[in-house]
Amino acid sequence: MDKYKRLKRELIHKGQIITFYEDHIELPNKNIAKWDFIEHKGAAAIVPVDEDGKIIMVRQYRNAIEKWSLEIPAGGLNPGEDMKTCAMRELEEETGYKSTKVEHLIDLYTTVAFCNERIGIYYTNELVPSNQNLDEDEFVTIERYTLEELVKFIFDGEIDDAKTISAILAYKTKMGL
Amino acid sequence: MDKYKRLKRELIHKGQIITFYEDHIELPNKNIAKWDFIEHKGAAAIVPVDEDGKIIMVRQYRNAIEKWSLEIPAGGLNPGEDMKTCAMRELEEETGYKSTKVEHLIDLYTTVAFCNERIGIYYTNELVPSNQNLDEDEFVTIERYTLEELVKFIFDGEIDDAKTISAILAYKTKMGL
Repeated sequence: MDKYKRLKRELIHKGQIITFYEDHIELPNKNIAKWDFIEHKGAAAIVPVDEDGKIIMVRQYRNAIEKWSLEIPAGGLNPGEDMKTCAMRELEEETGYKSTKVEHLIDLYTTVAFCNERIGIYYTNELVPSNQNLDEDEFVTIERYTLEELVKFIFDGEIDDAKTISAILAYKTKMGL
Repeated sequence: MDKYKRLKRELIHKGQIITFYEDHIELPNKNIAKWDFIEHKGAAAIVPVDEDGKIIMVRQYRNAIEKWSLEIPAGGLNPGEDMKTCAMRELEEETGYKSTKVEHLIDLYTTVAFCNERIGIYYTNELVPSNQNLDEDEFVTIERYTLEELVKFIFDGEIDDAKTISAILAYKTKMGL
């Protein structure tokens, strides 16, 4: 079935967190197409559930969509870091909680038409207080909601970040809630 | 709360389906940051359910992730096209079915850290046969699965496209299945 052949991958621009390439692809009908390719280092995210059953969410400004977005804690992989370690680190840095037990939920690609960004998504029901440790240029506020509230936000459009929608609905399904 | 200020948006490269910009942002602490921004025209997708209750899926090669990916029918907006019209058009072009009744499910942004790609996601239970009409350079095969099979694929990792995961789990939740 694999009748696509990459003839060339040309570097166009190295950005802050992504790199733009132009790929030259030979299609199954032998036509040559130029396709955009965005290289991303990968990321991890986590659904943190507190002792009251509420999910700890972060709200932050997202320049690309020009608004404050309500999301699960997440962040890009450090060099050499595996996804689970990254999820635990971002949890602590962004929310000020550590987890003693993190479980895998799902993995996803954010936008397969042009980007290889892959996010490993985890969940935890076992949190202990630690210290929030944001980057100097990171401004995040914490909010807590029940699963039912978050599901309502998804259908109302109050939550519209794909990794957060996928994670919340996958957690709901996995837990049979 | 809105203490971010965009000082400049510099065009870096206009690709085939996306455009790369470098944004200069004044942060709440008055530091200046350079952030990547990918402009995308937007897209639409649909969960098409046939008379046997099976969901019609498309499998296609995705260069960015170097594999054949199982997804719901989807595609980019044509100039001036609204999301619902786009979803109905892509349904017919990719699967060969038309819908007489399309309902809104959710909207999402695929990757909020650097891109404004927004996808409107719909569903339909009312399909009538029409004609598949792929672009010359588009190679897509059709597969049909039950909702239960697709949910299993999400947790197994056989489905890992974010719009498809969000759409299938949102459909499951909306229908109370």
